[in-house]
Amino acid sequence: MDIQTYDFEEIRDEVLEKILRFLSEKKYFKARDELLKLNVVDIAYILEEITEENESQSAVVLFRLLPKDVSVDVFAELPLDDQVKIVNIITDKELEYILQELDFDDKIDVLEELPANVVDKILEKTPKNERNLINTFLNYPDNCAGTLMTPDYISLQKNWTVAEALQYIKREGMDAETIYTCYVKDRGRKLIGIVSLSTLVISDDDVRVNDIMRTDYIWESVYDDREDVAADFRKYGFLAIPVVDNEHRLVGIITVDDILDVIEEETTEDFERMNGVLDFDSTERKYLDTPVFTHVKNRLPWLLILMLSYILTGGIITRFEKMLSSVIALVSYMPMLMGTAGNTGSQAATLIIRGLATDEVDTEDAIKILFKEFKIGAIIGIILSAINFLRIIYIDGQDPLIAMTVCASMLAIVIFAKALGSMIPVIAKLCKVDPALIANPAISSISDTVSCLTYFTMAALFLGV
Amino acid sequence: MDIQTYDFEEIRDEVLEKILRFLSEKKYFKARDELLKLNVVDIAYILEEITEENESQSAVVLFRLLPKDVSVDVFAELPLDDQVKIVNIITDKELEYILQELDFDDKIDVLEELPANVVDKILEKTPKNERNLINTFLNYPDNCAGTLMTPDYISLQKNWTVAEALQYIKREGMDAETIYTCYVKDRGRKLIGIVSLSTLVISDDDVRVNDIMRTDYIWESVYDDREDVAADFRKYGFLAIPVVDNEHRLVGIITVDDILDVIEEETTEDFERMNGVLDFDSTERKYLDTPVFTHVKNRLPWLLILMLSYILTGGIITRFEKMLSSVIALVSYMPMLMGTAGNTGSQAATLIIRGLATDEVDTEDAIKILFKEFKIGAIIGIILSAINFLRIIYIDGQDPLIAMTVCASMLAIVIFAKALGSMIPVIAKLCKVDPALIANPAISSISDTVSCLTYFTMAALFLGV
Repeated sequence: MDIQTYDFEEIRDEVLEKILRFLSEKKYFKARDELLKLNVVDIAYILEEITEENESQSAVVLFRLLPKDVSVDVFAELPLDDQVKIVNIITDKELEYILQELDFDDKIDVLEELPANVVDKILEKTPKNERNLINTFLNYPDNCAGTLMTPDYISLQKNWTVAEALQYIKREGMDAETIYTCYVKDRGRKLIGIVSLSTLVISDDDVRVNDIMRTDYIWESVYDDREDVAADFRKYGFLAIPVVDNEHRLVGIITVDDILDVIEEETTEDFERMNGVLDFDSTERKYLDTPVFTHVKNRLPWLLILMLSYILTGGIITRFEKMLSSVIALVSYMPMLMGTAGNTGSQAATLIIRGLATDEVDTEDAIKILFKEFKIGAIIGIILSAINFLRIIYIDGQDPLIAMTVCASMLAIVIFAKALGSMIPVIAKLCKVDPALIANPAISSISDTVSCLTYFTMAALFLGV
Repeated sequence: MDIQTYDFEEIRDEVLEKILRFLSEKKYFKARDELLKLNVVDIAYILEEITEENESQSAVVLFRLLPKDVSVDVFAELPLDDQVKIVNIITDKELEYILQELDFDDKIDVLEELPANVVDKILEKTPKNERNLINTFLNYPDNCAGTLMTPDYISLQKNWTVAEALQYIKREGMDAETIYTCYVKDRGRKLIGIVSLSTLVISDDDVRVNDIMRTDYIWESVYDDREDVAADFRKYGFLAIPVVDNEHRLVGIITVDDILDVIEEETTEDFERMNGVLDFDSTERKYLDTPVFTHVKNRLPWLLILMLSYILTGGIITRFEKMLSSVIALVSYMPMLMGTAGNTGSQAATLIIRGLATDEVDTEDAIKILFKEFKIGAIIGIILSAINFLRIIYIDGQDPLIAMTVCASMLAIVIFAKALGSMIPVIAKLCKVDPALIANPAISSISDTVSCLTYFTMAALFLGV
């Protein structure tokens, strides 16, 4: 197929429009021909867009008109939601063909999303060997290295020559997920070394694999955390990492292309959790595809937890109502004090949460962090207090004693919130709770309460009310 | 070197302790031998740790004792801060050797951090061809594709046979950043196709490069945004992408290992900006290495901007002081209403900011988003109002009219905040302002003001004060 080079971003809207027009005129074959001018990734993207325009029926028709080999590759690139839609419509025979041709790791991803009875039906038709392998892979817990790996790797014998190895790769390479890193196992399937294709290509033909393989490779265990695997990829810059079981037997490999998404997802997950969006619905759905009720379910718990903290704060305020009604001016500075406390605490927490996730800081650094945040809090607190002192006296025209009350509270609150914001993630990590999940609710509830109490205590001190 | 397989995580502390002991006894050679049992990435990691223990002098001594070839690879793995420390201490001759041996892209990174007079001195000794290339690379603006690329790629002739191509790769492959993707240019240096090493290895020896190269490859322009480049790597799962200039001449390639860090950094940047940590100090420093004053500089502006919004809110409260002193109970529900507005708005903003960054949603989806958030806001608002109504009446024992005031305000505020939180990032993107930077200050200031006004209006309505 001689496809001319194209810049997809530029032609995307044009192609999409053309295809939608063909579809609306029921010219499915013309639409398909238009689509086939693109590569599989972009075909998948266009099908997704068609589904989004509420034309999911047309998208499936179009998908079924694609040549068989193209359709499998396109299927692999579609998001899970769309894959499931297709699986529910196509015939068993079509499904069988797709599953047979899919890369092993993509197959596992699809099977995980299908209803149990469909999976059983598919597994019945699968040869016993592969059925066992599939069952093992389906049973790995979420978020572990096992869910990212594929068993389709190239495995070489250590006594082969480079020429023999290259010959073998030429024969078997088609079905492997990558041929750029090859693996050498002993008789007990234990991993004893790795050799990269570039080493093979650069070495002389009669050199033995044994003499050029690396034995100081990095490996992962099947149950290692996805985030740790991603960290190793970032640290060492590898294209693939082998995964071994407890007996150091090679069970699969993880390739770098699957890690790009993990890095994005893990960081986004921290980002969302810290800002109060949980994700109870574990499929990676897009914002617009997620139903309203799922959005509500992901957001409400956090708001309810914070509500409890506001009840506490409300209670404190009620107890000091008399003080407030005698100096009502105090009320107008409350939002500023409570808000600043929360904001400044969450700044510190943000840095520590990311630092802990990327191994920049460790729980052992707690004292250093605390000391650093104390200094930062003191400087910021003094600057904010000074500015507020001037504005309260000169702009608001308030009594200097009220200004003193607000500013002394501000200084104490900012220092406290910085220390609190930096320590909550560390404590959470020590207690094996996700820092991103707990940070903001813990900070708001504690800092709101402490801010109120500090403010009212200062008021009693300076104003004698 | 026959290094036994090791699990670095497990032995790290042990090795570090041993080396620190050797260093304290001034047994530098013993420390070096211990270090040489590790791979270069882990050697760099240990040197970093030694620097952090305030032994940066020892770290440099140790670095200079490493074999020359190892030292260059270790240097490339060190963070920029430590590289600059080393450059300032080693002799010109040592520096010359390191720069000569470094991969081109690492060299550029180091040169960018050195003072101009040192760079000039180095460039004087560089051959003219390379000097021009270095100058071009140094002048690319931050955050563009040009700063990520390397000119060390394998370039093949289209009329070569596979055997000739493999022969060439065997000869030239050592110096290339990757040999897994090779590039075919015409006489005018225009990129006409790419061919992967796996295609070459799998093809027969006498096939021409011209017949197996792909012409439907994806490319980037030198000035494309880093984030867009990362998105293409994620979308297509490539190991390398070519970078071309305006005339489609190949100027360099970007490899996937450099993209892992970009994805992490870009997402973290959004995460930090949204939570009020700017980064005026563009070097990628670790939390603990960043001086206190830089931390203050990165955090204070955001707090000052929010302060302006609190002044506004304070002003509104002052205007309604009479109302508040006549029904002082209203004060204790203020933190809850204002806090919930901010939190619920920032939930919506978080999802839209990430959605926009990952192309999940587009500014064109504004109406769909608004409609969705309106529904989500209505459901959440009704639930929160209902819970609060019961608690205000039965637990706080307040007047039902106060409960009505609070709950009606809550419903209106939550719906408004969801709409606001989802639209601010969209509007920011349309105005070409970074959504992550602007979202929370804009949401807090607007939602605080609107919450106060709504609350006081409802109070006037229900309580007639």
